[in-house]
Amino acid sequence: MSDSHSAIVAAEGHLVDSQQLKAIFDKVIERGGAFEVLQFSLGRTNDEFSRLTLKVEAPTAPALEDLIEELLPFGCHAVDVQDATVRVTDKDGCVPDDFYSTTNQRTHVRVGGAWVEVERQRMDAVIVLTGDRALCRKLREVRVGDRVVCGLEGIRVTPEFRDRTRSDFGFMTNEISSERRVEASVGRIAAMMRHTKDRGLKIAFVAGPVVVHTGGGTYFIEIVRRGYVDVLLAGNALAVHDAEQSLFGTSLGVDLEAGTPVSGGHRHHMRAINAINGAGGIHAAVTSGTLPSGVMVECVRAGVRFVLAGSIRDDGPLVDTVTDIVAAQDQYAEALSGVGLVIVLSTMLHGIGVGNMLPAWVPVVCVDINPAVVTKLADRGSSQTIGLVTDVGLFLHQLAEQLDRQDIGGAPARS
Amino acid sequence: MSDSHSAIVAAEGHLVDSQQLKAIFDKVIERGGAFEVLQFSLGRTNDEFSRLTLKVEAPTAPALEDLIEELLPFGCHAVDVQDATVRVTDKDGCVPDDFYSTTNQRTHVRVGGAWVEVERQRMDAVIVLTGDRALCRKLREVRVGDRVVCGLEGIRVTPEFRDRTRSDFGFMTNEISSERRVEASVGRIAAMMRHTKDRGLKIAFVAGPVVVHTGGGTYFIEIVRRGYVDVLLAGNALAVHDAEQSLFGTSLGVDLEAGTPVSGGHRHHMRAINAINGAGGIHAAVTSGTLPSGVMVECVRAGVRFVLAGSIRDDGPLVDTVTDIVAAQDQYAEALSGVGLVIVLSTMLHGIGVGNMLPAWVPVVCVDINPAVVTKLADRGSSQTIGLVTDVGLFLHQLAEQLDRQDIGGAPARS
Amino acid sequence: MSDSHSAIVAAEGHLVDSQQLKAIFDKVIERGGAFEVLQFSLGRTNDEFSRLTLKVEAPTAPALEDLIEELLPFGCHAVDVQDATVRVTDKDGCVPDDFYSTTNQRTHVRVGGAWVEVERQRMDAVIVLTGDRALCRKLREVRVGDRVVCGLEGIRVTPEFRDRTRSDFGFMTNEISSERRVEASVGRIAAMMRHTKDRGLKIAFVAGPVVVHTGGGTYFIEIVRRGYVDVLLAGNALAVHDAEQSLFGTSLGVDLEAGTPVSGGHRHHMRAINAINGAGGIHAAVTSGTLPSGVMVECVRAGVRFVLAGSIRDDGPLVDTVTDIVAAQDQYAEALSGVGLVIVLSTMLHGIGVGNMLPAWVPVVCVDINPAVVTKLADRGSSQTIGLVTDVGLFLHQLAEQLDRQDIGGAPARS
Amino acid sequence: MSDSHSAIVAAEGHLVDSQQLKAIFDKVIERGGAFEVLQFSLGRTNDEFSRLTLKVEAPTAPALEDLIEELLPFGCHAVDVQDATVRVTDKDGCVPDDFYSTTNQRTHVRVGGAWVEVERQRMDAVIVLTGDRALCRKLREVRVGDRVVCGLEGIRVTPEFRDRTRSDFGFMTNEISSERRVEASVGRIAAMMRHTKDRGLKIAFVAGPVVVHTGGGTYFIEIVRRGYVDVLLAGNALAVHDAEQSLFGTSLGVDLEAGTPVSGGHRHHMRAINAINGAGGIHAAVTSGTLPSGVMVECVRAGVRFVLAGSIRDDGPLVDTVTDIVAAQDQYAEALSGVGLVIVLSTMLHGIGVGNMLPAWVPVVCVDINPAVVTKLADRGSSQTIGLVTDVGLFLHQLAEQLDRQDIGGAPARS
Repeated sequence: MSDSHSAIVAAEGHLVDSQQLKAIFDKVIERGGAFEVLQFSLGRTNDEFSRLTLKVEAPTAPALEDLIEELLPFGCHAVDVQDATVRVTDKDGCVPDDFYSTTNQRTHVRVGGAWVEVERQRMDAVIVLTGDRALCRKLREVRVGDRVVCGLEGIRVTPEFRDRTRSDFGFMTNEISSERRVEASVGRIAAMMRHTKDRGLKIAFVAGPVVVHTGGGTYFIEIVRRGYVDVLLAGNALAVHDAEQSLFGTSLGVDLEAGTPVSGGHRHHMRAINAINGAGGIHAAVTSGTLPSGVMVECVRAGVRFVLAGSIRDDGPLVDTVTDIVAAQDQYAEALSGVGLVIVLSTMLHGIGVGNMLPAWVPVVCVDINPAVVTKLADRGSSQTIGLVTDVGLFLHQLAEQLDRQDIGGAPARS
Repeated sequence: MSDSHSAIVAAEGHLVDSQQLKAIFDKVIERGGAFEVLQFSLGRTNDEFSRLTLKVEAPTAPALEDLIEELLPFGCHAVDVQDATVRVTDKDGCVPDDFYSTTNQRTHVRVGGAWVEVERQRMDAVIVLTGDRALCRKLREVRVGDRVVCGLEGIRVTPEFRDRTRSDFGFMTNEISSERRVEASVGRIAAMMRHTKDRGLKIAFVAGPVVVHTGGGTYFIEIVRRGYVDVLLAGNALAVHDAEQSLFGTSLGVDLEAGTPVSGGHRHHMRAINAINGAGGIHAAVTSGTLPSGVMVECVRAGVRFVLAGSIRDDGPLVDTVTDIVAAQDQYAEALSGVGLVIVLSTMLHGIGVGNMLPAWVPVVCVDINPAVVTKLADRGSSQTIGLVTDVGLFLHQLAEQLDRQDIGGAPARS
Repeated sequence: MSDSHSAIVAAEGHLVDSQQLKAIFDKVIERGGAFEVLQFSLGRTNDEFSRLTLKVEAPTAPALEDLIEELLPFGCHAVDVQDATVRVTDKDGCVPDDFYSTTNQRTHVRVGGAWVEVERQRMDAVIVLTGDRALCRKLREVRVGDRVVCGLEGIRVTPEFRDRTRSDFGFMTNEISSERRVEASVGRIAAMMRHTKDRGLKIAFVAGPVVVHTGGGTYFIEIVRRGYVDVLLAGNALAVHDAEQSLFGTSLGVDLEAGTPVSGGHRHHMRAINAINGAGGIHAAVTSGTLPSGVMVECVRAGVRFVLAGSIRDDGPLVDTVTDIVAAQDQYAEALSGVGLVIVLSTMLHGIGVGNMLPAWVPVVCVDINPAVVTKLADRGSSQTIGLVTDVGLFLHQLAEQLDRQDIGGAPARS
Repeated sequence: MSDSHSAIVAAEGHLVDSQQLKAIFDKVIERGGAFEVLQFSLGRTNDEFSRLTLKVEAPTAPALEDLIEELLPFGCHAVDVQDATVRVTDKDGCVPDDFYSTTNQRTHVRVGGAWVEVERQRMDAVIVLTGDRALCRKLREVRVGDRVVCGLEGIRVTPEFRDRTRSDFGFMTNEISSERRVEASVGRIAAMMRHTKDRGLKIAFVAGPVVVHTGGGTYFIEIVRRGYVDVLLAGNALAVHDAEQSLFGTSLGVDLEAGTPVSGGHRHHMRAINAINGAGGIHAAVTSGTLPSGVMVECVRAGVRFVLAGSIRDDGPLVDTVTDIVAAQDQYAEALSGVGLVIVLSTMLHGIGVGNMLPAWVPVVCVDINPAVVTKLADRGSSQTIGLVTDVGLFLHQLAEQLDRQDIGGAPARS
């Protein structure tokens, strides 16, 4: 590779623990390049940083640029630093071809010689500079005249580091298995919830209608009452089946107490929609007493912020359901602001939607009886996803009990 | 049950074959009632109808009414017939409490002494009378002053009968198993497709992005070229990953030929969205040559009607994506008009959406590697769902080959 | 079909409820035959039998014979009856080519003009006549000189009828879903267990090691102590992981309380095997105190009959494990004598093994987090299989609690 | 940790690439210890080794010993080396409490000052010294007087290193997904097969009956004929269903060509067993022509070594089936000698059995439509497991085609 092209990059941090070092080497070889370690100092103890200076080579100049782009998310940055390249857009919703597309990791851009932390970090966004700030924006939010970060210069990504001494995440590794004792994991999750509230952060639940079908509604309500639910992100179906359960005692026509189908039951969900829409929506139905009980009632009473996103398979929908998905995404994202823990209950659709919006440092607990769902959510780049393969109804039963036990001596502060 | 309430109902048809008889008896007992068979004549041969007259009893008058409502979908009707009850709505999007909520089975209502067949049959709709016609309408489409069918009088449902001598459906029973020879099933599906086209009906595909990830795109294109795809119902992701594949040779950053991740690949889908939206959408991108090849290009060229429905997890979305789900449902439903066969490829979300819109007599083939998806689609009331648990990419490869073999001697007529 | 071959068959019973009628018609058409209903009387109420006389036709004489063979399991029998054909075997473990292979349904054979009920009914067996008795025997148990029932004459099968008024089975239909409220189903199972004991029948558990991994051991022990476990059928792994849990507090190296891996844990199971085999087996290890606690200890103390069947993936195995699978099958079958209810916990291998041995009238409850396992067990012909898709550890927790609640007022009698 | 206990360990190799470094640090913290890096040199290029000297501390002396035991599988060894501790057993099938239980990684023991490589490496074995050799032995094979390696001194484990420049394994990472293009992976597997044969090593297939049910038998036969199957490890069911297919054209009663059930079909498998056992077993049935075709016939003709292991769910079994599982394990292990590639087709039971016997350096390809099976096999410690979630019948079709294409220019040499 005598006529190869090379560059020198550096990285520092918990390079071994977070597997950045391996990932960096892998990428170089994967892309047909070569590397030479110029300097490496390994953190002597668990707390010390490691530091790497690396010479990377690639067969062509574009290949080298591609390679450096690929190394960016693993914390590598050029040794001699320039400001980020900025281009002005000339069309709404479109950006220059060489735009920088974000990861969900903490990112800084160099503007006027200074490193500015990017706000509203999320994946698959563009970075727009406004004044001395840098913000993530969705492609569709870009407007003519926006100053967009392009190319690769002057961008630094700090991969999340999973601190192995933090006990709350200690059980995350290889957790996607149905052959574990769920009760032990539930205890950890209860502790994480308490810890999140103690830090003044919010907890968001992302819930599918299975919560109601499996009889988990009762226990979810207890958790709401204890103050552990700040935000509820769901779809039309959760509210419909919850209302059906409240008004007729059934879920998709099945009596939850007896476990058997009920006369006329398959039409109960349509009657529930008609009743709530007739009352003018969920809040009005709660106020008027049309909807006497259930998950949504409890959320209204406790002031839980909820957003119901529409989908192609919705019946009705309820007037509360946000039928435009762009608006729904915006409302989800806004509701997630200040959230320190997300718990996804049996909904791949909304779970992935939420995962796309979160920065890497917000932990996500995903509970589903289907291991494929848990795997898929964990694969989407969130290094902080904890998977639990179990029955959602029984999980919520256990969680309510463990929160009860834990809270003796005082409930959490409302955020 | 001396002071019980009773009524006499009748049913006719293939009562044994379609299991109506058993279902009727089950319902009566399930609801705490009793029955006495007054008359029953069993069809003497495979072609003859059976006829039942049944006295049913229930402990209370409301229970009897509930019971009769429950027997309706199984083809039972009152022996002495009255016109359907009609009420006028007084609020947009709302109907009287006792509205009749439809099944997806063929339905007639009695108006002015005559039986009128309900048009646009689908499940979970209300029946609105306009002039001498009766139409299914979604709750949200009801307007003040609409004449809505209520109660249970004057309604007849004719459950679909699965004709066991029709070879094309012969393999439908108990088919949800991964332990079958897929090649035999593919041959049947190819024959059904040809048969559907020969009858002048359309074929709709409902496809998830897995079609592209699994390398099935190439084979799907062949099927489009052969004229077997009239309608394509999908989401934003199918078109995005198809464009990514066309522009960069990757799908979610993975090189489809080599099966390995590609440099910078994880951002290819964002670049693809930017390129297509910059060109002004899919049609414009095809015309301008921005999008040179792929599933969407082929659909544009062949005049395939496609609808992309938005969802909460969309990236972008493409300007072609219908972001309002009420509009998307309407466009899906309109595109399904005249369709005689639906093939769902690896998308539970859109598959359930489509299933909600279809009358019971349109057969649905559901192909997915996940048996839970196939079971769920089959459970949603479509008696005509054929499930196939297999790899979608390899399935499309086989299907293209078998259509090729079958078409020697002439391709199907375009509908 | 002018030169077709025909025969007249009859059937009686709950022909509609048990779907025999539909199955009979389906078979005839499926095999290319035709039928004519000569007589049919439908039971007028839920309790009355229906009676059918049917003329069936087939294109050839062998096809007619095949068809009649196929109708046999649905309760059809020739109108004019002869004694069963009996042939004498001339080789150990082999039978004449036209031997009658049993189903798991109740069967009678006609010998010397009298109908004799077959004993030890199970599927895939041959019927051997000894004196005036008829018994199911495995192929391998047949000896030279045995009198084996061949052909189809003089054999009557009585398909199991699922009585819809028996509340304990009311929830069986379509139960294979993870989207149900498990707590309601657990209540039914607890009631079935009590009912089984009250009738003086035994309860057998078939359990995989997941019972231990998921922390269900503690609750299983409670159920043993309450007297609800008469027989435990398992493999080597259950006992090994139970011993590991008892001796080291881990299961496959994972601390069950904390949910985290433990130092040296991956070798604990080998140490457990070494300890028990060193003591001379499970009973000796319990007596000597080597094995202080756990599922196996509790079974030894409560006199539960247990059989551990070997498999190709066994570590060790324990000296208690029956390594020859023919011997293991014999011991399983013998232990199942007198059992009135079988509960299978997360083991497809042993569950199918047990299913093969049971007559159709012993109900089987199958609990597994994997719906494919539940479907597979239910598909293997047992009309009495109840599937529950849930977490086994949490299921046992619920079951122990519900049995506790139910038993207030007196524990069940020991059988 | 002033009064803590410490030791100095060393490791060398591709410590970053194989993630040993991270694993070592994780273990130390996980066990409540601390570490200090005394020396670390990172391999400067992809080919150079890294070298680590580490001081580890633990709160107690036993904890330190546990910790060092845990570090052993990651290649750590004491800096000052002693001979391995050897104890003599005093009971058949039992060993001293502190016996060393093996991993499947390459292992050396120090005997008389020299490092001896352990033969027949496999997991969960004990190491027995005989003369100047060291061998893995199953617990049950240990005899009174055997010299068994105990404790932790003088043992070195060399973790397998996954060379990222070897293209044949390049696609292994994160491969457990059904959303990939199978055709690309099949090409790699075909290349691995050729490569294995070219190195003079054998290929073993571990196959479940699904191979026959899914119509894969035809393609498997082609692969046998091409010389790519040296060993076939299976159970009774594969041979039974293969014989059923050969004799009656059905598999579990289903016609493979038509995909529909066949008259009398559910008893075909019992007739097949009776026929083969009557002939005296598979070899005799092939010779006599009783069994005219199929997978087993082809294996007999091509001299493929096959072993059928019994299990509790077997029908029959065939006289060829090894009913004692200890004997079956021994025959499996013996047949695996000289094998350089194992391909597991839809059988978790036999796949885990084989996985337990293999050293870490034999790659295993696991093909199953159920992702849980693939995950489970991959989790059992084999760093060399490649998972492919797809339809087995279609997979074998593709594999036969790709081997055909690849072999133009010469078939592989028989090993």
